[in-house]
Amino acid sequence: MKISIIGATGYGGAELIRILHQHPEATIHSIHSSSQQGKPLHTSYPHVQDAVNLELEDIDPVKIANETDVVFAATPSGVSSKLIPQLMDAGAKVIDLSGDFRLKNTETYESWYKKPAGDQKRVAEAVYGLTEWFADDVKDAQLVANPGCYPTATLLGLAPLVKNGIIDLDSIIIDAKSGVSGAGRGASPIAHFPEMNDNLKVYKVNEHQHIPEIEQTLGRFNALTGPVSFTTHLVPMTRGIMTTMYAKATEDFDIDKLHDLYKETYANNYFVRIREKGLFPGTREVCGSNFCDIGLAYCERTGRITVVSVIDNVMKGAAGQAVQNMNVQFGLDETTGLDFLPIYP
Amino acid sequence: MKISIIGATGYGGAELIRILHQHPEATIHSIHSSSQQGKPLHTSYPHVQDAVNLELEDIDPVKIANETDVVFAATPSGVSSKLIPQLMDAGAKVIDLSGDFRLKNTETYESWYKKPAGDQKRVAEAVYGLTEWFADDVKDAQLVANPGCYPTATLLGLAPLVKNGIIDLDSIIIDAKSGVSGAGRGASPIAHFPEMNDNLKVYKVNEHQHIPEIEQTLGRFNALTGPVSFTTHLVPMTRGIMTTMYAKATEDFDIDKLHDLYKETYANNYFVRIREKGLFPGTREVCGSNFCDIGLAYCERTGRITVVSVIDNVMKGAAGQAVQNMNVQFGLDETTGLDFLPIYP
Amino acid sequence: MKISIIGATGYGGAELIRILHQHPEATIHSIHSSSQQGKPLHTSYPHVQDAVNLELEDIDPVKIANETDVVFAATPSGVSSKLIPQLMDAGAKVIDLSGDFRLKNTETYESWYKKPAGDQKRVAEAVYGLTEWFADDVKDAQLVANPGCYPTATLLGLAPLVKNGIIDLDSIIIDAKSGVSGAGRGASPIAHFPEMNDNLKVYKVNEHQHIPEIEQTLGRFNALTGPVSFTTHLVPMTRGIMTTMYAKATEDFDIDKLHDLYKETYANNYFVRIREKGLFPGTREVCGSNFCDIGLAYCERTGRITVVSVIDNVMKGAAGQAVQNMNVQFGLDETTGLDFLPIYP
Amino acid sequence: MKISIIGATGYGGAELIRILHQHPEATIHSIHSSSQQGKPLHTSYPHVQDAVNLELEDIDPVKIANETDVVFAATPSGVSSKLIPQLMDAGAKVIDLSGDFRLKNTETYESWYKKPAGDQKRVAEAVYGLTEWFADDVKDAQLVANPGCYPTATLLGLAPLVKNGIIDLDSIIIDAKSGVSGAGRGASPIAHFPEMNDNLKVYKVNEHQHIPEIEQTLGRFNALTGPVSFTTHLVPMTRGIMTTMYAKATEDFDIDKLHDLYKETYANNYFVRIREKGLFPGTREVCGSNFCDIGLAYCERTGRITVVSVIDNVMKGAAGQAVQNMNVQFGLDETTGLDFLPIYP
Repeated sequence: MKISIIGATGYGGAELIRILHQHPEATIHSIHSSSQQGKPLHTSYPHVQDAVNLELEDIDPVKIANETDVVFAATPSGVSSKLIPQLMDAGAKVIDLSGDFRLKNTETYESWYKKPAGDQKRVAEAVYGLTEWFADDVKDAQLVANPGCYPTATLLGLAPLVKNGIIDLDSIIIDAKSGVSGAGRGASPIAHFPEMNDNLKVYKVNEHQHIPEIEQTLGRFNALTGPVSFTTHLVPMTRGIMTTMYAKATEDFDIDKLHDLYKETYANNYFVRIREKGLFPGTREVCGSNFCDIGLAYCERTGRITVVSVIDNVMKGAAGQAVQNMNVQFGLDETTGLDFLPIYP
Repeated sequence: MKISIIGATGYGGAELIRILHQHPEATIHSIHSSSQQGKPLHTSYPHVQDAVNLELEDIDPVKIANETDVVFAATPSGVSSKLIPQLMDAGAKVIDLSGDFRLKNTETYESWYKKPAGDQKRVAEAVYGLTEWFADDVKDAQLVANPGCYPTATLLGLAPLVKNGIIDLDSIIIDAKSGVSGAGRGASPIAHFPEMNDNLKVYKVNEHQHIPEIEQTLGRFNALTGPVSFTTHLVPMTRGIMTTMYAKATEDFDIDKLHDLYKETYANNYFVRIREKGLFPGTREVCGSNFCDIGLAYCERTGRITVVSVIDNVMKGAAGQAVQNMNVQFGLDETTGLDFLPIYP
Repeated sequence: MKISIIGATGYGGAELIRILHQHPEATIHSIHSSSQQGKPLHTSYPHVQDAVNLELEDIDPVKIANETDVVFAATPSGVSSKLIPQLMDAGAKVIDLSGDFRLKNTETYESWYKKPAGDQKRVAEAVYGLTEWFADDVKDAQLVANPGCYPTATLLGLAPLVKNGIIDLDSIIIDAKSGVSGAGRGASPIAHFPEMNDNLKVYKVNEHQHIPEIEQTLGRFNALTGPVSFTTHLVPMTRGIMTTMYAKATEDFDIDKLHDLYKETYANNYFVRIREKGLFPGTREVCGSNFCDIGLAYCERTGRITVVSVIDNVMKGAAGQAVQNMNVQFGLDETTGLDFLPIYP
Repeated sequence: MKISIIGATGYGGAELIRILHQHPEATIHSIHSSSQQGKPLHTSYPHVQDAVNLELEDIDPVKIANETDVVFAATPSGVSSKLIPQLMDAGAKVIDLSGDFRLKNTETYESWYKKPAGDQKRVAEAVYGLTEWFADDVKDAQLVANPGCYPTATLLGLAPLVKNGIIDLDSIIIDAKSGVSGAGRGASPIAHFPEMNDNLKVYKVNEHQHIPEIEQTLGRFNALTGPVSFTTHLVPMTRGIMTTMYAKATEDFDIDKLHDLYKETYANNYFVRIREKGLFPGTREVCGSNFCDIGLAYCERTGRITVVSVIDNVMKGAAGQAVQNMNVQFGLDETTGLDFLPIYP
């Protein structure tokens, strides 16, 4: 398989290169960037020096589509919406890491993203690539809308509860925490080291553009799901997302039943690991890997279930899941080239 | 005022020394430790070399009580319960930083702390030193039970809602995050740098001993308050607590009303600062200071209020509030020796 | 004393405000910035909300000079050189935190700073404010060139060796490490959190503009001092500088003699603390304070002396030493308003 | 190839498992620990849950030797010296990650390690596994003494200078900085998060046990090499070593010649990468990989060369180089199973 990566100088692009460098069935054919054409990748990323000998090329959708089997668009929202229809028109299979093709409703997109939505035909064709739940859709898709980082951790954690209707569907609260790589590679005051180091920040309270993506997908699991509370925090670490989620159980519950439900739900999903009762994952325990680790609690005093879900935002929350989707699209085992261990410590 | 500090080699003790070193009305008369007697403080804490010339002494409650005006017990739970009655019998005024005299109910204490409770007469006499709310109690108290770090951030954040009954009192969820200094000075696997750096951990889900302290005090604000969900996280930073709190509004609300309520409630409290609408505090913004900063949101989609409250766990969450209580006990302005700015960045 | 601070939105300016907020003899009369005029300081620095009620004003040198007793210029190199002569012409006493008035030689300035040098009359008048060594100069100066952060740690550490000629004056190697606040408040790729966190970088090898400042001052201690090797590193921490310095002893030495030399040299300098033999300071041990802590070693195998010197770059390396100089200029004890303890941990 | 790992619960052991999990020619046959026998590895390391299904076994040298092709001893100094002769007597090929078989001179070992040296016959047989320089020795060795982390970074950086005698061989100064994982997995006050975070420490000045290892090997490159100055620092990051090294050039030099020398020296060594002129590596640029990246400078003012060398201490400084040595021992390409990219950011 020949691969092109557009947006190779962002963190998502760099991580795709790290993964695909070792993928047994894929070869990186070309990498593209809207700036820095003609420069070798290691001028942006010295860590690849002598190991990856690729030069950044400009973005010619038709040429890219003709030469490669699949294109990863690691481009920002607002860019993907313009670029991807051109790639698709030229026949390319595309996996888009932006938010541009995730939301089916134009108005919803525009009100949360504050940008014009993309071509509605392409939006309609896009399948949502939360691989554990929608692999069947991905298999035949020309365009995969790769899930956002927060939605991935959130949805994998909540799906068993929502699907089985064992919680009050209006009671969901998601307290999300992210490492700072989630803010992207561009320098900004919020991610300036002296401002962020040894600090904990909260941002976009009730305003994060991943909220409608979460609600849309929870709605597929159970149409009765109500709006969620969703708060995002920046933690002084590079990678990792943890979502701590709360919901009211609809009946008397116990931790054994809860644990069994999750173990069974994800029995055939290599990348979802359920911690033993009483144990909870830290973000470091998935760092650099494609795993989503989940811990569970039930509180008899309040009748609430707590679900803790962690991923590496750059991997399962972006590039890792994108490659997992590529594997599915091309009929490979979903773990191909992705079954490596987290880096610890 | 002559001061003794027991437990001076822990972080709470060291911070008391930092504050009292500059306090215009107080002098540190003696510092005490159950180990290291006879050694100068700077063998434990090189940062005080040449500036603080005190030697650690052993713990002789009667002698301490006789020589000083107020004793800070920066001793762990289980130690304070034994030590403080002796100090009080000898006539000392005591401010206890442990959890031993906070919970009025013996059974509650023993079931959450897994230790025998202290002398119930002394427990009954103890006043809970959340200064902004109970300064009148503190004024005349022989024993102040200084609040825990998490309860301080939580209660200052929730009090206006609970007291005024404008939330569903069974809907309170507290997602709490702490810097690692909260784990104390003793080396432990959980706080080992390579395990904690660049990591985010969740611990004691529904099991933290601060839960009954929060519930007992919320019950004083409003007897109808139900049990709370309370989850604690360790963030890779040294100081700081953030509690992100969620509750259902009982009626249609708006952010202006919410903001005014908080501004009015804390109008006369120097150490509580309400952020402007749409702004939220980071933990760094109170670092090294006695402030509690609060940000507010109301979500029309879910009808929920979000309150974000930050403190420095070693200051307002321990030593700072203890000195604030001392000020009140001795008729000083509560800000005396405490009105310095956070260290930033 | 009435104070003006120009460049109040940088880290040096913010730290001056933190210190002067508590200084018993000084009042901040006005703060100035080339942008953001008319905005309250807390829009830039939320940590001062409700505690510092000052508005940023524009920079009118004559007005500032007329209204205040001393002006702190916390402005960048290239800005100070233009601004300060105007302030001085209008009669102001000025303490400049930039590098613009430190180097006596125009060519040297221009070749290291790559900028035109300032008015040579004012350069000639400026006294170099390494307070421990040049307090007598500072006393009568209209313009104090406050030392750079690296030079402060370096010079306090090397002075006893160089002055007494007990090292080979051509053998000095300075390996310097700094926290990232040294890079200033402006967001930049080098200080972007995901790039800097959990990383250690080296920069400006043999090229740092503090090299000629160090050499000029070592030359005052001993005219025979040769050029130094000086390497700077960025450490993933906010504050702190450590310089590890190596020099060949000219004769057989021992650690006792070395230790005595330093203890005697700095016997009357409150802010310089010599660690006991075998002990070395960490940067955290001076964090938030004006101390410079020094550890010493002599190696019989190599005949080399190692000196480790740490400061808080924002304090003793900038704002703290500036206030120390102000104290000297106004006949106060140099520790006035500065004798607080480091914040630890 | 069947592999046993002894000391699998330390960081070196865990990293061996991470690498070998993916190695195309090796299978982990068994893992061993002096405690925790019978427990699955994921009770120590949750990050391997469901992916590595190995149980910790006790240490039976004969059984281990009989069942496997090569044994990695990731055991501490003092343990390896006792264990390894037993493994060798039973016929095992061993790669030792401790310092016990690196120093050829008994007295030197005992004076720096403060422990009795191991069996001198086995010490004599051991070959020093700095792969880039001694692969020929490794090929036929029964026992490989895998280099220490600091020596690896140091020796790869200095070898071209020392071997070619283009520096004053008495002028070498090594200023070394390490991430905290180098301190091992055991909790200790020095590595306690609140003590180490946002801090920079210096330790073992002139006393580190890696000094004789460095000097012994430099002596192999050039017998005239004198004693070195070597200082170690702990940096608040998890992984990574940087050594900044200084030496006096014996003749007029230039950066081009220097750069060419290094490029040529390491032309055939995949894992050593020389940065372009004027560029220097940060530790993050090798994180999680087996690379050693080197930057170079020559200063005309001082006549000194500066070499900056970075590695991941857990990889090239321990487990990675151990596997590289295993590859050589078994006739594989040295990069087999090791040619993955650093994780960035």
